[in-house]
Amino acid sequence: MSSKDAYAAAGVDIAAGNEAVARYKDVTQAWRHPLQLDAIGGFGGLFRVPGEEGRALVASADGVGTKILIAARMRRYGSVGADLVNHCVNDILVVNATPLFFLDYLAVGKLDPAVAAEVVRGCFEACRENNCALLGGETAEMPGLYTPGDFDLAGTIVGIVDTGEVPKPKSVEAGDAIVGLPSIGLHTNGYTLARKLIPEEEYGAAFDGTTFGDALLASHPSYYKEVRAIQQVAKVKVMAHITGGGLLENVPRTLPPGVKAVFEQSRWEIPPLFVELCKRGNLAHEEKYRTFNMGVGYTLVVPLADAPKAVQAVPGAKVVGWIESRAEGEPQVVVHPARA
Amino acid sequence: MSSKDAYAAAGVDIAAGNEAVARYKDVTQAWRHPLQLDAIGGFGGLFRVPGEEGRALVASADGVGTKILIAARMRRYGSVGADLVNHCVNDILVVNATPLFFLDYLAVGKLDPAVAAEVVRGCFEACRENNCALLGGETAEMPGLYTPGDFDLAGTIVGIVDTGEVPKPKSVEAGDAIVGLPSIGLHTNGYTLARKLIPEEEYGAAFDGTTFGDALLASHPSYYKEVRAIQQVAKVKVMAHITGGGLLENVPRTLPPGVKAVFEQSRWEIPPLFVELCKRGNLAHEEKYRTFNMGVGYTLVVPLADAPKAVQAVPGAKVVGWIESRAEGEPQVVVHPARA
Repeated sequence: MSSKDAYAAAGVDIAAGNEAVARYKDVTQAWRHPLQLDAIGGFGGLFRVPGEEGRALVASADGVGTKILIAARMRRYGSVGADLVNHCVNDILVVNATPLFFLDYLAVGKLDPAVAAEVVRGCFEACRENNCALLGGETAEMPGLYTPGDFDLAGTIVGIVDTGEVPKPKSVEAGDAIVGLPSIGLHTNGYTLARKLIPEEEYGAAFDGTTFGDALLASHPSYYKEVRAIQQVAKVKVMAHITGGGLLENVPRTLPPGVKAVFEQSRWEIPPLFVELCKRGNLAHEEKYRTFNMGVGYTLVVPLADAPKAVQAVPGAKVVGWIESRAEGEPQVVVHPARA
Repeated sequence: MSSKDAYAAAGVDIAAGNEAVARYKDVTQAWRHPLQLDAIGGFGGLFRVPGEEGRALVASADGVGTKILIAARMRRYGSVGADLVNHCVNDILVVNATPLFFLDYLAVGKLDPAVAAEVVRGCFEACRENNCALLGGETAEMPGLYTPGDFDLAGTIVGIVDTGEVPKPKSVEAGDAIVGLPSIGLHTNGYTLARKLIPEEEYGAAFDGTTFGDALLASHPSYYKEVRAIQQVAKVKVMAHITGGGLLENVPRTLPPGVKAVFEQSRWEIPPLFVELCKRGNLAHEEKYRTFNMGVGYTLVVPLADAPKAVQAVPGAKVVGWIESRAEGEPQVVVHPARA
């Protein structure tokens, strides 16, 4: 594998995903509930609190992806629940929502109550950390669909936001700074490729002071407290949660058409796991930034003048790029590679 | 197979499910969000609308179960979405909630955008029928977890209810009538056993004016309009959605300890598909009513005096049983078999 198509070769078809999304839009445009509001970059759906003008519920559904297969192989069931909850918290945080409650869906081939309880404990602890109720869930035992040791985990979060505080992409302008919050490993994206590049036999092997398995299962953090801390000292215009599609596909989701995001790779360090994965996969520059978060888990666009205060508010936060004006046809995201 | 353990022999372990639920309770009792309210029989979780006394959000997560495997084999992708949405609508209807929005989670081995769009179309059309926004969703392509033709579908619904209108189990008393709404096939439960009893080779075979495949995939209906119609003319004390566990396990969820529900099987007709499945599986009486809905999809407890108005309000509604006082140690549900 040594091309832009490495992820597709690993079995994930991003083009098919984009086509599915386009078809969903066709399907769902036939009708719209009167309380449904326009979404911001698709990170969360907005729905007006019935009978109120000023507040909206924000909801998002997600899964853990094939990180779950690594957890299953390593019989490590506690952390995927936290990965999922934190992923969901971050998604609705992009819309500035405060989490209210979360529900999980756990599907297994053969139900082991102790394992299921570990998964739910992971969800519960992360919910508690985010002051979010674990309001319910479903556990489905489906022999025939899942093999006995396998499982899938998905969840839905609901939060609330004052509609006046929903970020406005229009407010973004050339000269703004982009603040990046550091990622801890792959979070919940890129695992289908990572699993091809680091086979199961190596999970126990030493890597960067830990093992490959532990590095691969590192927790997806919640950025809730960090974002609220930055909002105390800086005007935050828009944000992005760097999930599947990386910086290249997530940052544009909350940008207006007339600007581009320019990242300077020398401004942050690429964590060793990404260096290793990119080397093993011989990944092209664009493929790296489309498949992995490459060390940046969450981005916030702030006025240049607010950037120093923003990065001081949160350990590890860095200015990782800036907003420039964009001519038609130019890409919406550019990542300038660091010199080797 | 000819015992109470038929479903377990088919690969679904109800005891393990109950143990998992008990463990979840242990896990989650360590903390509770201040806005979380007590649930009614676990059909939906209740969460107070922040800053309000009088209203609560009601949420429920569910999957389609292994009905999905039949749909995949028959390449019939339009109906499972509706099954799921209607299932969720009915679950929160038990708490008297009006649906607001729904989010789906679709997981596939190999993403076919046309198939995925059919699934989402099914969700969307059912949402529209129930005046519920399809607010978002997640489609995950996970080679390695699912085989190329297989998929899983789950979803979460959020509704709203005036807290004063949440049904009160305490109001149920001996002498009340139980009104049953007719089911249309298996809905979304009992498929792991049904798939053992009716093998794939028979899906195309004629059965009861249709085929086994079509009968197995018959849609899970929404009971929203029927329930609202009955509530117009009768005082509805509590309700139950007859899902996994059948009448035996779902009806008690909204009953107080001092009463039992007594069903008289001669009061409704067992649909031919259940007759066939029970015969093939040589199912014991209790196993039938624990695995399948046996023709009753939803129950409403009303004062005896209101029962005639209730059944007249909805075609197919019937008085299927009544509430009697219960001594300690007696079962909470009794189904008197019809004479052969």
